[in-house]
Amino acid sequence: MLALLDARGGAVEELLVVAGGKGGREEAVSRARELGISSREVSSRQLSELCGSDGHQGLAARASLPEYSDLGEVMARPPYVLLALDGITDPMNLGAMVRSAEALGASGALVGKDRSAGITSVSHKASAGAMEYLPVCREVNISRALRKLKEAGYWVYGAESEGGESLESVEFSDKTVLVVGSEGKGARPGVKKEFDFRVSINLSGRTKSLNASVACAILVHDILKKACADS
Amino acid sequence: MLALLDARGGAVEELLVVAGGKGGREEAVSRARELGISSREVSSRQLSELCGSDGHQGLAARASLPEYSDLGEVMARPPYVLLALDGITDPMNLGAMVRSAEALGASGALVGKDRSAGITSVSHKASAGAMEYLPVCREVNISRALRKLKEAGYWVYGAESEGGESLESVEFSDKTVLVVGSEGKGARPGVKKEFDFRVSINLSGRTKSLNASVACAILVHDILKKACADS
Repeated sequence: MLALLDARGGAVEELLVVAGGKGGREEAVSRARELGISSREVSSRQLSELCGSDGHQGLAARASLPEYSDLGEVMARPPYVLLALDGITDPMNLGAMVRSAEALGASGALVGKDRSAGITSVSHKASAGAMEYLPVCREVNISRALRKLKEAGYWVYGAESEGGESLESVEFSDKTVLVVGSEGKGARPGVKKEFDFRVSINLSGRTKSLNASVACAILVHDILKKACADS
Repeated sequence: MLALLDARGGAVEELLVVAGGKGGREEAVSRARELGISSREVSSRQLSELCGSDGHQGLAARASLPEYSDLGEVMARPPYVLLALDGITDPMNLGAMVRSAEALGASGALVGKDRSAGITSVSHKASAGAMEYLPVCREVNISRALRKLKEAGYWVYGAESEGGESLESVEFSDKTVLVVGSEGKGARPGVKKEFDFRVSINLSGRTKSLNASVACAILVHDILKKACADS
């Protein structure tokens, strides 16, 4: 909550607090006061109804969700490492990927407009606050967005569960877009056409695939490690 | 299902099939017949009751869960990369880590006996079948198990969300145990005492931590990559 207040400041409309809570609540109320945000006492049951779940720990902020960012601006942000998500429909999965991408230091994420999870209260919560910091762009047509990125000097790397170049031998460009598709099907054919390289993580076990969010995190970690080593 | 039949063979007692299903079911029934396993038709509702969920896709096998393995045997298995999980209580998290560890090629996992998730139907399902292949050992005392591993030539690397040596600069031993604690608290003090090295993943974003299962996968991936490069 403190992280949210620091990130959003005045954009938080109101703090909702269950009376008689623990230390963390007092700290949040005091921080809110400094920021000019009013706090209101509610019952635990009221808060559960407002949040649509019991997992609120006695504290909630009423705030609008972050807005989508402009791809033109995001692609100009160092370290020029973008994540393009094609057909990730589960908001928990999207939130998990945003969390990892932001924590590891990526510049932003790109999601489709249709048949894709976007910025919602569910994905926001699953991102553990990271959606406050990682710019997320929403594009009607992912293939066209990838072409636009290529014109700006980006190279497109598609994550494939098998058959791609081994992650260990791939050299990532100074400007990299990593495309991650849905766990079952991967990216759609039209999006795959835009891949400059296909990358796979070496799996030497008998289980033939990683969870999409886990694979995404391993790849982003490797891309950023190499980006940092070069600069 | 085919993977389970191939892995467990005769240990599967019976195949339960909802009539009028898709192609995958026929293939499973035919494979079961080859293995001498009988199939029984049930209604979709019966199967949901037996499975305790609707996510069965019309097919289930009645089989005992895999048994725990003996640490003495597992530690002698190449590539000598073990995962020790301290205080991971969520069976979904345990299953996710087993899935990644097995897919990436680790030798086995070690869990505590108390206050720890173990081999259950929930963790088994969350492992996407990987629990059939990755040996899981259960030890009353994780610290004692770590000392036993050290006597056998293993070095103990503790994953820390911050403050440890940077993953990029760590040299992993030929025999490595990676200790992962719970997301909130990390490993317990008694277990931390056995760490030979503390390792952290560089996080350059503003989100201060990764999901425990994601961090575990990034670390196991890096350990195994270095293990393969050396051999």
